[in-house]
Amino acid sequence: MTAERIDGKSIAADLRDKIAVEAKKLIDETKIVPGIAVVIVGEDPASKVYVASKGKAAKECNFHSVQHTLPEDTPEADLLVLIEKLNTDDAIHGILVQLPLPNHINESKVLNLIRPDKDVDGFHPINVGLLTAGERDKALVPCTPAGSLILAKRVLGNLSGKNAVVIGRSNIVGKPMAALLLAESCTVTIAHSRTKDLPEVVRGADIVVAAVGRPQMVKGDWIKEGACVIDVGINRIDAPERGEGKTRLVGDVDYDSAVERAGSITPVPGGVGPMTIALLMANTLTAARRAAGLSDLDFAALLAEVEAA
Amino acid sequence: MTAERIDGKSIAADLRDKIAVEAKKLIDETKIVPGIAVVIVGEDPASKVYVASKGKAAKECNFHSVQHTLPEDTPEADLLVLIEKLNTDDAIHGILVQLPLPNHINESKVLNLIRPDKDVDGFHPINVGLLTAGERDKALVPCTPAGSLILAKRVLGNLSGKNAVVIGRSNIVGKPMAALLLAESCTVTIAHSRTKDLPEVVRGADIVVAAVGRPQMVKGDWIKEGACVIDVGINRIDAPERGEGKTRLVGDVDYDSAVERAGSITPVPGGVGPMTIALLMANTLTAARRAAGLSDLDFAALLAEVEAA
Repeated sequence: MTAERIDGKSIAADLRDKIAVEAKKLIDETKIVPGIAVVIVGEDPASKVYVASKGKAAKECNFHSVQHTLPEDTPEADLLVLIEKLNTDDAIHGILVQLPLPNHINESKVLNLIRPDKDVDGFHPINVGLLTAGERDKALVPCTPAGSLILAKRVLGNLSGKNAVVIGRSNIVGKPMAALLLAESCTVTIAHSRTKDLPEVVRGADIVVAAVGRPQMVKGDWIKEGACVIDVGINRIDAPERGEGKTRLVGDVDYDSAVERAGSITPVPGGVGPMTIALLMANTLTAARRAAGLSDLDFAALLAEVEAA
Repeated sequence: MTAERIDGKSIAADLRDKIAVEAKKLIDETKIVPGIAVVIVGEDPASKVYVASKGKAAKECNFHSVQHTLPEDTPEADLLVLIEKLNTDDAIHGILVQLPLPNHINESKVLNLIRPDKDVDGFHPINVGLLTAGERDKALVPCTPAGSLILAKRVLGNLSGKNAVVIGRSNIVGKPMAALLLAESCTVTIAHSRTKDLPEVVRGADIVVAAVGRPQMVKGDWIKEGACVIDVGINRIDAPERGEGKTRLVGDVDYDSAVERAGSITPVPGGVGPMTIALLMANTLTAARRAAGLSDLDFAALLAEVEAA
């Protein structure tokens, strides 16, 4: 059996198209243009690539998009002043501070200052608390797990009663992923570096979400026959087979062996990654709609419409 | 093998003694008297019993304790005004609203109005978020799971790498219990009514926390030999063997069969229940200490001192 390849890149493109249409409707009906501010401090090359992708996606989605690029040695106080300004700027519905921040800046102090209703990354404690408490409709949900959930539901439909194993317990992916799967009525296990006999734990899973940041760690013989495998990892490894000094991207799952056992699997790149940016746009649209007193859209349902069309 | 019976009643009494000593020290050194306000709306007999126990414990702990008893038909607005008043009352460090509230009152609206630093029940979204994000030292943690964790750690010591299964996904017990066990580096599984083959899931657990509210649901043959069983349930069942119309309290675990398999087990009553009230006192002392700019006490370590003495 060879697994169905879950084409996150194409699904994310469909989602961005749908968001663009919905944003246009919002603008026509309310004159409110969804606005996102992306803040980047310093010159980290990977961060610059991510920020550029986010800006591009925002434009495709008909959003108002601004980027604040601050020098590496920006004092923390200056960054906090900028956040305060964006908090009270009515043209901005979503604020994203690109991580990591330079060492002299207290990351959680900055993130906790972002107004929860503009916290499109979903990292503010109050958004974490609302998601955990099952009040997703009041929260903004972290983008990577929200995108991963859409992929899993597209393949499996209703997730109720399925055994899900989340490998990794980060605040950005592992924990919110577990909260989302629990809200879908999965039996959820959170595994991590201290877990004993991880292969055996993974073998019990109908859904495996790998978010550890270790290249190709999850092997094919850990995967239950037919399971849905969501690979959140993005790791760069040497690829001498492509020529001297060449590298390539791989996930946390050993794709070549896992694809022979799984029922469905996300590739890296082109799986979860594009979904993360699409969900950032979805969160910004949600924040703008809530600011206008409108109810949330069901993005999974919007995607289903794309297919039916 | 017969399990060690975990004597929550006696451990809770030790903890209250220690809290009383620490409260006295705080009062002597800072003149700050830890103050708790308990609010009860209506005449529910069980609620009245709980509130009386809390008041008694507060007095034993040398706290300032006030009780606000409001009639069943109190308008929501009046209750909200009372909460606001307690929020700004410097003599009050902990506010507890006894649940359930009458149907005409929006429970989450009331609970979310309590200032997070006075939320000694730990139910405010920001406390939930901080606990989930691993920032326990900034949060107030729900009392029942915090007390359950102390019991498990007394028996097992370091919990790192142990398989823990939490049965039940309530916001009051199941979810915060899972967050606490994860922070102790357990591999944590959250099971619930939709879980398939619950007995098999429980059989993998070194630590079982049962919090479902179904009398004697967890059977002895579900328990792994030597596991630590924490029974959060308190259910009243008929006890015709005690005479006509008589009842008795049982947990969510079938004690008589589980005690033959487990390594340790909490009884009902006299297990987790008394710990809940002791941890409410601990949270109130923590809130008062934080208001005075003092660091948190390690209540588990204080208990260890009791034993060494």
